[in-house]
Amino acid sequence: METDEKHSWRAKLHELIYEADTPAGKLFDVLLLFFILLSIVLVMLESVNHIDEKYHDLLNIGEWIVTILFSLEYILRIIAVKKPKKYIFSFYGMIDLLSTLPKYLSFFIVGSQALVTLRALRLLRVFRILKLARYLGASNQLKESIVASRVKILVFLFAVLVSSVIFGTIMYLVEGEENGFTNIPKSVYWCIVTLTTVGFGDIAPQTALGQFITTIIMILGYGIIAVPTGIVSAEYARSANKAAKNEGEEKLGHSIDNVHTNSQSCRNCLAEKHQDKADFCHKCGFKLHND
Amino acid sequence: METDEKHSWRAKLHELIYEADTPAGKLFDVLLLFFILLSIVLVMLESVNHIDEKYHDLLNIGEWIVTILFSLEYILRIIAVKKPKKYIFSFYGMIDLLSTLPKYLSFFIVGSQALVTLRALRLLRVFRILKLARYLGASNQLKESIVASRVKILVFLFAVLVSSVIFGTIMYLVEGEENGFTNIPKSVYWCIVTLTTVGFGDIAPQTALGQFITTIIMILGYGIIAVPTGIVSAEYARSANKAAKNEGEEKLGHSIDNVHTNSQSCRNCLAEKHQDKADFCHKCGFKLHND
Amino acid sequence: METDEKHSWRAKLHELIYEADTPAGKLFDVLLLFFILLSIVLVMLESVNHIDEKYHDLLNIGEWIVTILFSLEYILRIIAVKKPKKYIFSFYGMIDLLSTLPKYLSFFIVGSQALVTLRALRLLRVFRILKLARYLGASNQLKESIVASRVKILVFLFAVLVSSVIFGTIMYLVEGEENGFTNIPKSVYWCIVTLTTVGFGDIAPQTALGQFITTIIMILGYGIIAVPTGIVSAEYARSANKAAKNEGEEKLGHSIDNVHTNSQSCRNCLAEKHQDKADFCHKCGFKLHND
Amino acid sequence: METDEKHSWRAKLHELIYEADTPAGKLFDVLLLFFILLSIVLVMLESVNHIDEKYHDLLNIGEWIVTILFSLEYILRIIAVKKPKKYIFSFYGMIDLLSTLPKYLSFFIVGSQALVTLRALRLLRVFRILKLARYLGASNQLKESIVASRVKILVFLFAVLVSSVIFGTIMYLVEGEENGFTNIPKSVYWCIVTLTTVGFGDIAPQTALGQFITTIIMILGYGIIAVPTGIVSAEYARSANKAAKNEGEEKLGHSIDNVHTNSQSCRNCLAEKHQDKADFCHKCGFKLHND
Repeated sequence: METDEKHSWRAKLHELIYEADTPAGKLFDVLLLFFILLSIVLVMLESVNHIDEKYHDLLNIGEWIVTILFSLEYILRIIAVKKPKKYIFSFYGMIDLLSTLPKYLSFFIVGSQALVTLRALRLLRVFRILKLARYLGASNQLKESIVASRVKILVFLFAVLVSSVIFGTIMYLVEGEENGFTNIPKSVYWCIVTLTTVGFGDIAPQTALGQFITTIIMILGYGIIAVPTGIVSAEYARSANKAAKNEGEEKLGHSIDNVHTNSQSCRNCLAEKHQDKADFCHKCGFKLHND
Repeated sequence: METDEKHSWRAKLHELIYEADTPAGKLFDVLLLFFILLSIVLVMLESVNHIDEKYHDLLNIGEWIVTILFSLEYILRIIAVKKPKKYIFSFYGMIDLLSTLPKYLSFFIVGSQALVTLRALRLLRVFRILKLARYLGASNQLKESIVASRVKILVFLFAVLVSSVIFGTIMYLVEGEENGFTNIPKSVYWCIVTLTTVGFGDIAPQTALGQFITTIIMILGYGIIAVPTGIVSAEYARSANKAAKNEGEEKLGHSIDNVHTNSQSCRNCLAEKHQDKADFCHKCGFKLHND
Repeated sequence: METDEKHSWRAKLHELIYEADTPAGKLFDVLLLFFILLSIVLVMLESVNHIDEKYHDLLNIGEWIVTILFSLEYILRIIAVKKPKKYIFSFYGMIDLLSTLPKYLSFFIVGSQALVTLRALRLLRVFRILKLARYLGASNQLKESIVASRVKILVFLFAVLVSSVIFGTIMYLVEGEENGFTNIPKSVYWCIVTLTTVGFGDIAPQTALGQFITTIIMILGYGIIAVPTGIVSAEYARSANKAAKNEGEEKLGHSIDNVHTNSQSCRNCLAEKHQDKADFCHKCGFKLHND
Repeated sequence: METDEKHSWRAKLHELIYEADTPAGKLFDVLLLFFILLSIVLVMLESVNHIDEKYHDLLNIGEWIVTILFSLEYILRIIAVKKPKKYIFSFYGMIDLLSTLPKYLSFFIVGSQALVTLRALRLLRVFRILKLARYLGASNQLKESIVASRVKILVFLFAVLVSSVIFGTIMYLVEGEENGFTNIPKSVYWCIVTLTTVGFGDIAPQTALGQFITTIIMILGYGIIAVPTGIVSAEYARSANKAAKNEGEEKLGHSIDNVHTNSQSCRNCLAEKHQDKADFCHKCGFKLHND
């Protein structure tokens, strides 16, 4: 049947683009990774004045080539999926589109004033780097421990913000505008710079009382840096213990099906994390391709 | 009876203001939260010169509206409670009063010189933000681990202060006034800036010997930053283990009554943390309202 | 007997000065604490030029009073102990002497040039603050965990130093004298400032290559700050577990005699940590006083 | 036999140079350590202008003596080993060669311009310090915990880099060239300086929006500093537990052969970590010397 045939090359395209289990799929991903990195380097170099002056045309051509390649990839991704809307409105679909658009916009909108804005749009393509995250397996254990300690870290960050607002206001009153604490928002900014132990030094207390309060802020910051560390550390140890326990249980025969060594993705609904020998998608029941 | 009737609307008011279990009570708290944030933003914007010049009247009116609303809320809180003194002299009662007073004082006291002091008083209203803490459940586990490691962190902070005084004095002698270490308190301040790894850089050692001693201070600071982190981390892990154990025990039938999912507060003594189906206050025996 | 009588007031003096179990002994320690803090504040204030100009005589008289009081205390400490040599050559004996001497030396040695050196000696009295450590119980658990991780922290600090020397030399070559990296020792100093995340900013890389290498140094520093923290944290958790286990054993009847709630110190050999109802010193067998 | 005799002094030489179990071998290592430290101090002092001007000849002679001694040591190391190629192309063989070559090159290549490059090569001898690592036992537990958390720390560092690129670009757009963010690479550099809480302050945000974004970057950095610490801490605790368990097992008779208290190294293949009473190399079967 014709549809079957058509399905066939679309299935192959899907396998090539979305999965990394076949040699061709792997090559595609490595090439994509290379072009993403290349495009970031190109955008970075273009922002350096003395390099842009010398090699403007070269950088421009390079950017156009990368942009066209990414556009082609975007179209192929839409074609390969059965339900394109699902891809287009997914997180990566949006990022993929956002990483090609700015360059095209720079072509249509011309004008000396607009160029500054254009550059801004063009630079958004740096978000293309987010694609990289896809190619680096996320540590589930790490993710779990961060999710588990999410609420506690939020409470903690809230405490940091409240004390920054209070100490920032006090420092504004004590030091005043003549010592760089020109207004409360700036004082609060300075207070966070100090609490997080960054300490740029562009604003620094000059009066004795201001330096005394700064000492309190710093020791407070030094003491509370321990809190989120302690939380993540303990949560991570707990989730690591659970993982070790699970491993032990698996050895005893109580296998838990949470190991996915393949990179298969359903052609219909883009669901991932299929079992290694699965024939059908566990989300929508669509038939997965055979190896 | 009249008193019963009166009790009734006071009871309802109490429920509205102090508790967040009913839709009306929830709405009240969300509105309060919004006005607290608004008033902080207004005070912050007023301190920025170029914004204050343009919108002085608007900001002033906004502050007056918020102040009057907070005053009304303060009076209602006093009316709703059976023993007003208990509320007035409680921590939040003081904060609630302190957050309205400065604006009124700015009305009575006039004078170019006094205005600077006034601004100081007005800014105290930023403490109003402390109210926020009420609306964000505190992580009991976190609190426990900090309380458990309190003494050890104090010993540690004391060690930091003692070494700061000693190293500060040495640096004052080594670097001297010509390199910014103008007196011992300033040297001690610089030493704490360095030990806590903030490092503003407004004062920095210039002599070879001073830089060598600074190296020792920094490596010391780098080494001891591990101590409070380690303490909180271990204590937190311990209290988390205990909590996990308690949970396990509860499942086995040895339920521990430390879960309070409601926000009820006694009308008589303001005690909180009542059991979910309690009819009487566990502190004073006063009858709690029925849902 | 006369000797008995003499022994008696010396025993009382010993109890007053060295121990804190009686009301009089407690008062003595609190007064001593107050005078130590006072003398540190006096030395600090004297170093602030505009305060010294105004109140020079007052500060000078205050320092003389404190110095004479400390001298009297030093003599009484020698008289109260049976073997004075043991006290004089102990750590605190040395500190007690060093905290009084500089002021007397300032009396005998006169001369404009020598005064600067004198001030240096005088400031050594800040070491007097070390006395404070005596009055704050040291957390044994914390001490244990630091001792247990001592070797590992040393290996770690050695690694920090070696990488600082290597990266410091590279930065010296890359940035050169014109960008503030005037010589290798200074470059190494800068490298430690960066690795420990202090970052004064008095020296900062200016070349693109220098900034790239700095990025590597910082990420390295950011990564390795985890190491000592992790070590102390794990060691502390282990020693805390052991302590908890010991407590459990004690409850089961296997009491361990490591709890000392008194502050008794032997009159003969200055040994401490006697059992609560001990009659004789556990080090030299000398009779302890009765309550 | 002649070969036996020859073997005999080569075996002794091998024992002297490569091992530290005999008094002579220990002395050799201590002397080597001293000369390594001396040569580093010499190179450092030579880079300080005012010292080099005064003592140039002395420093030069000192460096030549150290260089010749290291060359002799290098030749002896080659002679003592049965398979010299194995040593020459080993990590330490390369370092040993690299630490002597630059000084000789400074002799042959003359010229005012070339001297600057020469100094660069000469300074590479600081890598000689890497030899030190050999003499300080590496903490295996620490190494294990770092290796175990390697992948997770890489994922984390990758996340830091990606967010630095994105935030760096945003800051470049917000602050612009007039506030020091002259190009994207520099902005990314600044972003890493801020995320790692180093905060030099040579570049600092000037606009209100820039300072607001900086606040987000700092709080992010403050929050994520907890992640690698938590990972290493938990992994270290785990490997420490395993070690403690192993120790326990050993006491029960199930001895594990992973304790190597000697410093023997095979004359044939340079393999290390032989058992204490081993007669033959566990890697190549070559006979080890008898004590």
